[in-house]
Formats: sequence, structure tokens, C-alpha cells
Amino acid sequence: MKGNFVYHNPVKLFFGKGAIKDLTEELARYGKTAQLVYGGGSVKKNGIYDAVVSVLKECGKTIVEDGGVMPNPTTDKLAEGVKIAREHGVDFILAVGGGSVCDYAKAVSVSVHCDEDPWEKYYIRFEEPTCEIVPVGCVLTMVGTGSEMNAGSVITNHHTHLKIGHVFGSEVMPKFAVLDPEYTYSVPRRQMVAGIYDAFNHICEQYFSGDDDNVTDDLCEALMKSLVKNSRVALRDPRNYEARSNIMWAATWALNTLLAQGKDTDWEVHMLGQAVGAYTDATHGMTLSAVSLPYYRHILPYGLPKFKRFAVEVWGVEEKGTDRQIAEMGLEKLHDWMKELGVATNISELGATEEMIEGIADATLVMDGGYRVLTRPEIVKILRESL
Amino acid sequence: MKGNFVYHNPVKLFFGKGAIKDLTEELARYGKTAQLVYGGGSVKKNGIYDAVVSVLKECGKTIVEDGGVMPNPTTDKLAEGVKIAREHGVDFILAVGGGSVCDYAKAVSVSVHCDEDPWEKYYIRFEEPTCEIVPVGCVLTMVGTGSEMNAGSVITNHHTHLKIGHVFGSEVMPKFAVLDPEYTYSVPRRQMVAGIYDAFNHICEQYFSGDDDNVTDDLCEALMKSLVKNSRVALRDPRNYEARSNIMWAATWALNTLLAQGKDTDWEVHMLGQAVGAYTDATHGMTLSAVSLPYYRHILPYGLPKFKRFAVEVWGVEEKGTDRQIAEMGLEKLHDWMKELGVATNISELGATEEMIEGIADATLVMDGGYRVLTRPEIVKILRESL
Repeated sequence: MKGNFVYHNPVKLFFGKGAIKDLTEELARYGKTAQLVYGGGSVKKNGIYDAVVSVLKECGKTIVEDGGVMPNPTTDKLAEGVKIAREHGVDFILAVGGGSVCDYAKAVSVSVHCDEDPWEKYYIRFEEPTCEIVPVGCVLTMVGTGSEMNAGSVITNHHTHLKIGHVFGSEVMPKFAVLDPEYTYSVPRRQMVAGIYDAFNHICEQYFSGDDDNVTDDLCEALMKSLVKNSRVALRDPRNYEARSNIMWAATWALNTLLAQGKDTDWEVHMLGQAVGAYTDATHGMTLSAVSLPYYRHILPYGLPKFKRFAVEVWGVEEKGTDRQIAEMGLEKLHDWMKELGVATNISELGATEEMIEGIADATLVMDGGYRVLTRPEIVKILRESL
Repeated sequence: MKGNFVYHNPVKLFFGKGAIKDLTEELARYGKTAQLVYGGGSVKKNGIYDAVVSVLKECGKTIVEDGGVMPNPTTDKLAEGVKIAREHGVDFILAVGGGSVCDYAKAVSVSVHCDEDPWEKYYIRFEEPTCEIVPVGCVLTMVGTGSEMNAGSVITNHHTHLKIGHVFGSEVMPKFAVLDPEYTYSVPRRQMVAGIYDAFNHICEQYFSGDDDNVTDDLCEALMKSLVKNSRVALRDPRNYEARSNIMWAATWALNTLLAQGKDTDWEVHMLGQAVGAYTDATHGMTLSAVSLPYYRHILPYGLPKFKRFAVEVWGVEEKGTDRQIAEMGLEKLHDWMKELGVATNISELGATEEMIEGIADATLVMDGGYRVLTRPEIVKILRESL
């Protein structure tokens, strides 16, 4: 644990079957008017919307509707949400959905009382909120982003082709989140596997950095092994509660700041994936899987001991051959698992074309915490290899 | 993750070298008068007391002294601390020390404004506080108990020969804790290894329960492996920052409620150890190590798959032979590590005698979350084998 850090994660999690019913006491802490945020309406079909509305009404709350949050929430939608919040003077925001809905709710929460353009302040200048923050709660219906227990918020600006995430301080974290594994049963298989890969990659982004033997690295390996093990059960039997609940819990801990402690962290796969997402509007987890292997193959020589450890500890690769061979075998095992999951392994299938490469490269932020700080030609090379 | 649960741990941790200096902003949140709680005075010799006082004064706080907290804080000392708090109308309590000092600070915090006898209310009837709770902060100088990030508090009543722990709700958790690995350098070797075993056993108590493949089990294994790995470095080189910081961080996560989620949890080793402690006043971690092996050998047949998994995943035992043989080999490896550490492996060396066995058995609470609910003859048998 080389660096100094402050760990503070006060999010209260209600976990398990029917956990929404345990929310009554918690809801009493907030005011009367709730902005109910959700996505394209699937929550209305699967009964989750009704369950949430029923608890809100039981607690005497007035509901202000804010549906239609898209998979990559935009600055235009953010403006709409802020307008709704201001018009109704909402007391808290309840997000019902996956990471996009949670991210959007947080963006609204720091923008309602903000005098400036939130895109410029939070996502371009990366400033912290100086205004009052509207409290946010989440009812999670899709697993992967970890947004339910962190202060991250990714917003897309279609006017400037930029998809940018800001990790705020702990005061922007949701106050509470409901994690009911059964709420994830109705998610289409493609979204389920994208979420699993998203969670796995969050761990990779934190694991593939640093040269010390950090206790966080051991925790990373535990969560990665658990995700792989349980994904295999969930692929065969998507309604297996044990597997789905393990995946849900592992995904939350994959990105709630714990695994970042004492680590430099990388996040370059996310930078590449988000740039692809800004051009293709593809599912977030799929953009990550599509660029992962070319990126990891490229940086492997710079972080060889860690890639070897990854092979041995996460994938059970035998320690035979050179370190390089062992490390490469680990990436082969990762590739095999991606095929099992059925996630994208190239960006062409997500709609990216050779013509977009320069633009995507322009939109790719370069991080300096990983094993290699990418140059522009390296970014272009990795993107070409991802085609 | 079979059971439903609520996870909520809002403790703010300041981790790393010199982290005490980062406390200024945090201290501003609390009132003017601080009850400064510490133990036998070692913090005065090693400079930690001066560093803490200096930060408190810098923040304009008035200090009320409350030193002399003993290793197993007693009901008599608790009464003394409550008197001090009431007389000076303290605004917050700052505990500087190890688990006993933190546990004591929490006990005082829920007793200052309590009209009843705190021992009866909290440690006999296990009630939650209904009065105002004085905020507690911790500056940790000894690693092991996890008290800095949980709501547990163990108090000893010498009048009735009872040592009882109450795990309160999250409102009794410290508000903040300072974890500076360098503060643990001056701890005597015997205390260091007792703390390491204490932390390891906290994980065991949660791990050895349940028959599902819970993500928490994977996390348990990661933390156990990290503790073993880093203890070996710390034994050779007690001032190795990487090892001591990893041990400190692993010990905090070993008992901050995370590993209990979705688990039944056992805690019988603690019940046996605490009973031994009430009779011998021996160091907590040593009482745990002294009874562990007889207890685990006794329950092994009832939790065979988990003991096998423990052998393979934590100790790298080869999967050769019967499950029973593999599982027993895991306990042998645990025994070898205990010898390496130099922790107690029997209760005689802690001062327990054959004559005390019946009394210790009387004082041993029986838990029902583990693989075996012990009968009175089983408790006596385990204690005799521990002699």
C-alpha cells in the first residue's frame, strides 16, 4: 500500500431478494418530492417500476417522472432532467436502472443548484460541486458499472463527440442503493455479459498498475476469479440466484473505490472504449471488451510481472516456460472467456470503421497510471488492431 | 450470497505515513472538547501522543485526559471514563491505541448519555443505544482487532468473570480513523504477531460457515493469503513499510462487516478465547491461537468441503488423497504458520490450568452459525485439548 489515501464510502446497500421493501425507513430521511429516473421503459414491463412506485407511495412521496434516460446519457438529456428537478423543486432523486441511469441521476444531482454549465464545470474542467447536492438513491436493475456505490458519472456530448467520466468526491455518491439480484434476471443476455465484462475490466484497470505486492491486488484476483466462476453458472442458468447475486456483489466492489486504494490505476481501456462509444453509441461493456486484448498485448512487456501473476493467480496457468509465455497464456485464457461470454472482441462489430480511427484516437484521453503512457501512434495502432 | 443484508460502513479512513496531519479538516466537524483516550503510556514514549496532541491543539481543541486503558478494558474503567466525559461535557472522544482502546472509546460513547447500567444494557441484554452517542475517532497504533472500522466493543467484567463483545449498529462505528503503518513499528513482536493472528482468525470465523460458494469466501481467501505472505516479510523485517501497511489494511477489512455479508459466520473461537481471556487476562490474539487448532480439528468433519477449500486455496495444498487428508493438511499448514509467528498454541502457556476448565466452559457462549453447535462436553473436550 505505497501511497497515502482517504477511504470513505458511506453508501448504504440493501441487498437481496425483495430488498426494495426494506427501503421504507431509509426513505423517511428525505423530503416529499422524488424525481423518479429510469430508462427506456423495460422497468415498466418487468414490474420493477410498480414495486418502486408502490414503496414511494407507501412513504407518502410525490413522484415526478423522468424516464427515457438513454444508454449513454447525453448533455441534452441532462439539461432536461435539471429543468424537471428545478420546476418541481425535487427533494431527492431515485434512479431505477443500470449504470447509465445512476450516472445520469448523479449528474442531475450536482447540476440542479449549479449556476454554470455542468458539462463545462464537471466534465471538461473536472471541478467538484460547490453548490447543494440533491440526494440520490439507486435501485439497480443491471449489473456492471458499480455506479450504485461510487461517485462516478459518465456523460456523452454528441455536439462535440466526447464521452467523459468524472469521479467526484464521496459526497456525490448515492445515499443508498437497492441491490436485488432477481431484478437482473430480465436483462437480455447481451446486456448481462456486457455488464460482467465491464465489472471484470474495472478490476483490470486497477490491478494492472504498480509494481508492489499490494493487498488490493489479492482482492482484485479474488473478485476476478469469482466473476469468471459465477459467469459460467449464469451463462448456463441465468436465473441461478447464487451466481447472479455473487456477480452483483462482486461488480459493486469492483468499482466502489476499495480496489483503487494504494494503486496508481490505469483506466486506458476505458478511455479507448469511451472514445469508441462516443462514435458508435455501442454498449459500454462491449466497447471495453473490443479494445482490451490489443491494448493488453501492447502493454504486456511493460508490466510483465503483473501479467504473469494475472495468468497464474486468476487463470491457473501453470508456471512453465518463460515469464512472457506464461503472461501471454493468461491473455489467451482471457480471450477464451470473452468468447464464452460472447462479448465483442473487435470494434468493427460495434460499427466502428477505418475512417473513424483518427477521430476515435482524437477522443481518447491518455492516462499515466498504468504500465505504459500511450503515444498517439500507439493509440492508432491499438485501435487498428481492434478493428 | 444467500441471505439478505444491509451493508453500511461510513467510517472515513486516513491511511498512510504521516496521515495524522490530514486530520485537520475532519476535526473541524466536531466540538471543542476532546476526551483523549489511550493505554499504558507507550504512546507517550514513541511520540504518537505528541503528534496527536499537536494536531488537536492546532485545531483549537481542549484536551481532557483519559489514559490507562488496560488491554482488556473493564467495567470499572468504563465507569471512570463515563465520569470524565460527563464532568467535562466532552464533544468527541479520540482513541489513540489498539483495539482495546478503540473498544473502550465506543463503550464510553454509548454510555455518557445512558441512564441505565451500560454493562447490563449493552453487554448482557445486547440492546442498541437509545441515547445520544458521543462521536469517536481512532488513531490506530496496533493492528488486529479491526475495531477502527467496525461497531464492535468488548468489555470485561472482573466481578462476574465475563468478557463480552457487542457488535452495535453502524451509528456506533468511529466517525474516522487514522491508519499510519509506521505507528505500528514500535509494537513489541509478541503484540504484532498476536494482532496478525487475531486478524487472520476474524477471517476464519466468517469463512468457516455456510455451504455456498459466496464471493465473500473468495475475498476471505485473498485477505488470508495476503496476511500470511506479509507476516513472513514482517517477521524478518518489522520495519518493512509495504508488509506492515498490507497487514494493517488487510486487518481492517478482516472485520469491518464486509466479510460477514451473506455469511452465517461462526465466532466460536472468539467465544472460547474470550472465556480464556476472562480467566487469564492473556492477550486476545494469543487466546484465539491457543484454542484454534483443537476447535478446528473438532469441527472439520462437519465442514469438510470448506476445510478442503481452505487447504487448497489458502495454503496451496495439492489435491492428492482423500478430502479429509487434504483438509487436515490445511490445518497442519496453519499450525506451521502459527509456529513461525510464535503465537500461543495452548492455553497452559497463557496461565490456564485444569482447575479452570469448568469455569472457562461456563463462560463460553455457544454460537450457532458455524459448522457445529457445541455441546457442553464438546467445549470441555476442546478446552482440555487446548491445555
